[in-house]
Amino acid sequence: MIPLADDAITRDDKALILAYDHGLEHGPVDFADVPASADPETVFDVATHDAVTALAVQKGIAEAYYPSYEDDITLLAKLNGTSNMWMGEPDSAVNWSVENAAELGADAIGFTLYGGSNNEVEMAEEFRQAQEAARDHDMGVVMWSYPRGQGLKNDTSASTIAYASRLGLELGADITKIKYPGSADAMKWACDVAGKSKVVMSGGSKASDRDFLETVETAMNAGASGLAVGRNVFQRENPTALLDGLEQVIFEDKTTEEALSV
Amino acid sequence: MIPLADDAITRDDKALILAYDHGLEHGPVDFADVPASADPETVFDVATHDAVTALAVQKGIAEAYYPSYEDDITLLAKLNGTSNMWMGEPDSAVNWSVENAAELGADAIGFTLYGGSNNEVEMAEEFRQAQEAARDHDMGVVMWSYPRGQGLKNDTSASTIAYASRLGLELGADITKIKYPGSADAMKWACDVAGKSKVVMSGGSKASDRDFLETVETAMNAGASGLAVGRNVFQRENPTALLDGLEQVIFEDKTTEEALSV
Amino acid sequence: MIPLADDAITRDDKALILAYDHGLEHGPVDFADVPASADPETVFDVATHDAVTALAVQKGIAEAYYPSYEDDITLLAKLNGTSNMWMGEPDSAVNWSVENAAELGADAIGFTLYGGSNNEVEMAEEFRQAQEAARDHDMGVVMWSYPRGQGLKNDTSASTIAYASRLGLELGADITKIKYPGSADAMKWACDVAGKSKVVMSGGSKASDRDFLETVETAMNAGASGLAVGRNVFQRENPTALLDGLEQVIFEDKTTEEALSV
Amino acid sequence: MIPLADDAITRDDKALILAYDHGLEHGPVDFADVPASADPETVFDVATHDAVTALAVQKGIAEAYYPSYEDDITLLAKLNGTSNMWMGEPDSAVNWSVENAAELGADAIGFTLYGGSNNEVEMAEEFRQAQEAARDHDMGVVMWSYPRGQGLKNDTSASTIAYASRLGLELGADITKIKYPGSADAMKWACDVAGKSKVVMSGGSKASDRDFLETVETAMNAGASGLAVGRNVFQRENPTALLDGLEQVIFEDKTTEEALSV
Amino acid sequence: MIPLADDAITRDDKALILAYDHGLEHGPVDFADVPASADPETVFDVATHDAVTALAVQKGIAEAYYPSYEDDITLLAKLNGTSNMWMGEPDSAVNWSVENAAELGADAIGFTLYGGSNNEVEMAEEFRQAQEAARDHDMGVVMWSYPRGQGLKNDTSASTIAYASRLGLELGADITKIKYPGSADAMKWACDVAGKSKVVMSGGSKASDRDFLETVETAMNAGASGLAVGRNVFQRENPTALLDGLEQVIFEDKTTEEALSV
Repeated sequence: MIPLADDAITRDDKALILAYDHGLEHGPVDFADVPASADPETVFDVATHDAVTALAVQKGIAEAYYPSYEDDITLLAKLNGTSNMWMGEPDSAVNWSVENAAELGADAIGFTLYGGSNNEVEMAEEFRQAQEAARDHDMGVVMWSYPRGQGLKNDTSASTIAYASRLGLELGADITKIKYPGSADAMKWACDVAGKSKVVMSGGSKASDRDFLETVETAMNAGASGLAVGRNVFQRENPTALLDGLEQVIFEDKTTEEALSV
Repeated sequence: MIPLADDAITRDDKALILAYDHGLEHGPVDFADVPASADPETVFDVATHDAVTALAVQKGIAEAYYPSYEDDITLLAKLNGTSNMWMGEPDSAVNWSVENAAELGADAIGFTLYGGSNNEVEMAEEFRQAQEAARDHDMGVVMWSYPRGQGLKNDTSASTIAYASRLGLELGADITKIKYPGSADAMKWACDVAGKSKVVMSGGSKASDRDFLETVETAMNAGASGLAVGRNVFQRENPTALLDGLEQVIFEDKTTEEALSV
Repeated sequence: MIPLADDAITRDDKALILAYDHGLEHGPVDFADVPASADPETVFDVATHDAVTALAVQKGIAEAYYPSYEDDITLLAKLNGTSNMWMGEPDSAVNWSVENAAELGADAIGFTLYGGSNNEVEMAEEFRQAQEAARDHDMGVVMWSYPRGQGLKNDTSASTIAYASRLGLELGADITKIKYPGSADAMKWACDVAGKSKVVMSGGSKASDRDFLETVETAMNAGASGLAVGRNVFQRENPTALLDGLEQVIFEDKTTEEALSV
Repeated sequence: MIPLADDAITRDDKALILAYDHGLEHGPVDFADVPASADPETVFDVATHDAVTALAVQKGIAEAYYPSYEDDITLLAKLNGTSNMWMGEPDSAVNWSVENAAELGADAIGFTLYGGSNNEVEMAEEFRQAQEAARDHDMGVVMWSYPRGQGLKNDTSASTIAYASRLGLELGADITKIKYPGSADAMKWACDVAGKSKVVMSGGSKASDRDFLETVETAMNAGASGLAVGRNVFQRENPTALLDGLEQVIFEDKTTEEALSV
Repeated sequence: MIPLADDAITRDDKALILAYDHGLEHGPVDFADVPASADPETVFDVATHDAVTALAVQKGIAEAYYPSYEDDITLLAKLNGTSNMWMGEPDSAVNWSVENAAELGADAIGFTLYGGSNNEVEMAEEFRQAQEAARDHDMGVVMWSYPRGQGLKNDTSASTIAYASRLGLELGADITKIKYPGSADAMKWACDVAGKSKVVMSGGSKASDRDFLETVETAMNAGASGLAVGRNVFQRENPTALLDGLEQVIFEDKTTEEALSV
């Protein structure tokens, strides 16, 4: 965590990251309800919304679509990722080098760490290389900190999620993306132990506008610095209304009620 | 996927790739019905047909035969491959460096990814290195995207094949070679989710001229950008007629009936 | 072990290393009793105590907090570490390169070796790389020598702890951190076989002031060169008194009684 | 396979390679019947026979003995090899770098590939590195292509041996050494599918002069380009007669009868 | 094996290597009978005896103690080694780079190869790197050739020990250290198959002066070039007498009787 390293992907020290790597992580089935969402252009258009501070995609998507949007979107290069088709302890492939991401115009990198996986040691070492290379290129570092694996019984317990956010601080992330641990208290614990490293809540599976905004509001009040969201945006036919609401809650300190009544 | 990266191996944005790595992948048994096909010169001669936009071979074949054909054939360097003699989760050896392929005159690289294999993570990282090196040499990138492995029950289901083509887009292939998923609808899904990345259908095992052309026609109508074919060409005593037909269907928008009546 | 290599992190050839990597190794649960200890600033403030000759933290903590304390604290870069969430033979991830640590201003490196783990060979080779890189940067080397793994029945027996301290000497540590083996005689053996390499006692879990000081006094009399302590300091609401006492015992050759009566 | 790359180790496009790595592969027991054969000088002296186009040895033997013979013997650097003392899927250690071999004066490299071993992928990648480095040094490449491993039931069947010789062509060997598959037809198939890559027969265990020459004659008539032989030469008290005969059969197109009557 | 490469560590082409890596390989328990032997200075003092042609230690010991003895002792850098605390197939960590050893003033390297271990392939490749780097620095190479592992029933049989010494020759050692195979004939076989590579006998566990000298005498008569000894020297309260005797037997061609009567 380095001061100002995440400036390019935050606004007033807060972040709303639109994540769009589901085609790799989950496959095209995630686009089934809203077929247009399979087309990256649809999602890149959404990402031009003022509320979105960065768009996180894999290398292939960035190569093909980012050049047309580079004036309107801040690119967060999601370096690793994998399909869900194989079996075994959680792991993720490093699909993109930092050097290549920098050449394509990315302002920050994103990296998944499956703490608790029997592959944690290897993944942490890959994170080290990516994090230090990002520093050499003055790029911010976002960790997707998702404990999972044989040694974990409940990967959204308060202590596990607090451990997840602490890993981001200890290992050198500017922003750590964690799952919502189910309560305001647990979220506050996770934010407290992250120190100067920012915490953003992971959007998770699709919810109603109100339910989703309320969870985000709770997270912000607990100390979160924003949100990283995917399906809750692109699985909506018209995500603009939700993004308008998120902008109020995240950047304007509004309540869900206030945001919904705008 | 980068605009124009595949120019050298396409014609009007469509591709007919002649693949000839069966001696490595399946062994000489694939040449048994047409013994002359064991001789690379026979296949290189076929590849001079106007319909063929690129010939995909392994390094050893390229070293020995390509220099005599470099004016008439576009070389697609198939970087990885393996014999079928060993056991275990699908994997493939990287038999050729991008640098060496570029020196030999290749215009593009080909790389197999067995998504769903327990070796997917390692293969994806090898693909990253090859893909980024290809970019440094201004070479196009073709992914052989073949999900298979312990975690997959049916590797030609619609969702698996759509996942396969999406992997090409997400990871940075200009062209992704997939198996025909059995129906026009499934093929259309696979093409839709590939975005700007082109999809070519894999030829598979030998079929009659009419059956094969009809499948290719269906694939083209579903959004495919062409075909990568091996056995359906070199396992024919005289493949010229079929290539003539494929040229009509792929590049001239003709139906199978029209193509067969030329 | 090189003469003077540890000068920056010792005082009169003795060391009191404050270790603060529990957020990575054990998770935030270690901060539960004294919540303020989750905040690195709290611990950095403690580390400005004259008795502390170096503060050992992971890269992320150093990046975020050390720049504000670089005039008052000597940084010991703890290069490897891991969470306790996964299963299998003991191992540790190398989270920090020596080059990066040197740039951030570290004067020495810290490295855990789990001798006796089935991963010992790999960890020893990682230690070699770190140790030799440290020499290139004129940095001291501290080994956390903690035998554990499938092949060990009792990891605090006299012979195991003596083996642990000898590993530090054989492999090139300037200072070796070992667990207290339970008796003055066993501690003396461990110090004797370390030769010119210094031995510091590991603080372990929290104890009363008197009990802890008495153990440290025993260790010093047995030939130890100091202490590396974490929980026994930051799990106290006000650790200053204990640090005052440790200063007397470690640097002023005082007994526990004398130290407590100051 | 590159034209002329094997010129230094062939004579009229044919090869008689004397292989002497049995001390590594089988141990000193192979020298028991003819104790003098344990002394490399004995075998180097044999290798000065006009019929021998190259001598294949490991690095240590080359370092110690080749400098005295460099005017009379062509050195083929056998890069990999291993003892037969360990258990598990077939594998081979890379004991010699191409750079070092080139400095010692080698004109070509030799490399074993155990196709069908569960280590085939790794071995093929090591072969790639060696093969491409050899090209950088203008050295010829000989593959010892020996399918064996868990997935193979019969490693000398016609189809397996044909696969073996094809692997040499596909992966870039100038010469591929295969076992004799038991019949002229099977040998012809193996030679046919090797294309421009030359095939040499492996000598195997010791046979009578007549039996051995007849097998070689059959192999030559089937399309082989020569022989790689070890035990059938050095396990003879006086191998000159056999080498005289082999010279007639391999380079002078003589029959076994004619060769024996010279 | 290269002529003169071992000059610095031999005298009249014979060697008496004092090995002192037991603190790493066996732990401090090896020093229990003669506690002073735990102190490297004690052993370095012994190594100044005229009979000792080189002292073999690990990096940490060399860093701390060699600078005071560099005028009186020839340093043999034992590059790999490991504790005996872990379980599994024999392996050894590379704890020292050749470059670092050269900077510290070493004249030769020592490297253990566990032929027959399922890790033999990896260890042989590590040996290759060390051996070739040693050549670049004009350093001699000594192999500790100790067959052991799952695939070996009796690791001191005549054929296994002969295989061990042959491995040294084949892989490029100037001197190969083997265990005494139990008889003069077996030792002679092991020396014969080592060719120009020198063989030194391993000292093994402690024996009486007479028994030990007689075994050394037998080995020398069988063709050995000397001895590598550890416990039989440093586990004696006063090792000078034994070293005097060894000097007579190894360098002066004396019998045990003659040596004991000096």
